[in-house]
Amino acid sequence: MHSHPGNVFVISAPSGTGKSTLANRLVASLEGLMFSTSFTTRPPRPGEVDGKDYFFVDDAAFDEMVRHDEFVEWVQVYGQRYGTGREWLRGVLNSGKDVLLDIETTGALNLRRAISDAVMIFILPPSANELEQRLRGRGKDSESQIQARMQHARHELELYHAYDFLVVNEDLESAYRQMESIVWATRVRRERMVGRAQDILREF
Amino acid sequence: MHSHPGNVFVISAPSGTGKSTLANRLVASLEGLMFSTSFTTRPPRPGEVDGKDYFFVDDAAFDEMVRHDEFVEWVQVYGQRYGTGREWLRGVLNSGKDVLLDIETTGALNLRRAISDAVMIFILPPSANELEQRLRGRGKDSESQIQARMQHARHELELYHAYDFLVVNEDLESAYRQMESIVWATRVRRERMVGRAQDILREF
Repeated sequence: MHSHPGNVFVISAPSGTGKSTLANRLVASLEGLMFSTSFTTRPPRPGEVDGKDYFFVDDAAFDEMVRHDEFVEWVQVYGQRYGTGREWLRGVLNSGKDVLLDIETTGALNLRRAISDAVMIFILPPSANELEQRLRGRGKDSESQIQARMQHARHELELYHAYDFLVVNEDLESAYRQMESIVWATRVRRERMVGRAQDILREF
Repeated sequence: MHSHPGNVFVISAPSGTGKSTLANRLVASLEGLMFSTSFTTRPPRPGEVDGKDYFFVDDAAFDEMVRHDEFVEWVQVYGQRYGTGREWLRGVLNSGKDVLLDIETTGALNLRRAISDAVMIFILPPSANELEQRLRGRGKDSESQIQARMQHARHELELYHAYDFLVVNEDLESAYRQMESIVWATRVRRERMVGRAQDILREF
């Protein structure tokens, strides 16, 4: 899957870093960029739509897809499995759309192996203190959950060197601007523009 | 000259493509980005300031610099020589500034050999017809000069594959936005952010 018209963007970040806010705004603002729809064995939550939020499948169907190598990446989280379908992704990319995958570091590293030219973006908190304050500020977690999240954040941050771009979410506007710039710049990379350049050259 | 805090951006384009407009706006708008100041044997034009527009040197001084490998790139154009000073560039990059070099394709290819991580941007006209109309519209050139420029443009365009990014100047705002995005995105590349990421990680 090397020469395709659409680009694959991967975004990972520790919990509390503002990833969802940034990713949602990016997809809402940028034409031609859409979220990936993953397959999952997790049951739908109220309001979730099959084929839009996820493709909901049972364990047997997921097993079958794994066996036939139909995922570009898949991971298991808290006993539930999540995967990006190869055919689905190929179809979207061939239609010229860019796809944004919001996935954990483990899935991201697997995806890189399958799609070497995926553009991988890691979002960092400005500091450990700031992240801890943000997690507390959300008021969603117990003290022990916060400590567990901080420890997990540390493990994820150690993988930053596997990513192409590192965005520090110090203030949301700058971070958003940086993310948007990564998408725009990727779209004018030489590899993506060769066809256009050759068309222009042909007339001279 | 591989690990430095500042980035080197190179911009090339056929005459009439809008390169100067884009480059001037970029340097005026983006903090921490400045034009390179070249050395030249060409005599100063009225109003040009030594050390600002160019470093004006005589032939003997230029020869001496070439002999001592003091240029990262130099070219000869219409009997005059132009070069980018190695010490000058190193000094600016070490101060953390990004440098924009507005140079012809020949100089750009030489520069790439000296600075492998230079970010090279090529600006293309949307079409041959459009470029010819723009050249005529300027009213600066005779018919034969326009034909010569078109032929030279073709030779330059053939080198597009040596550049990292291809920006088609179809409308100025989009082209400007793409250029700006390339600068922003480069600044958050992993290689440039490793120090920051390590600082953040250390606190966890």
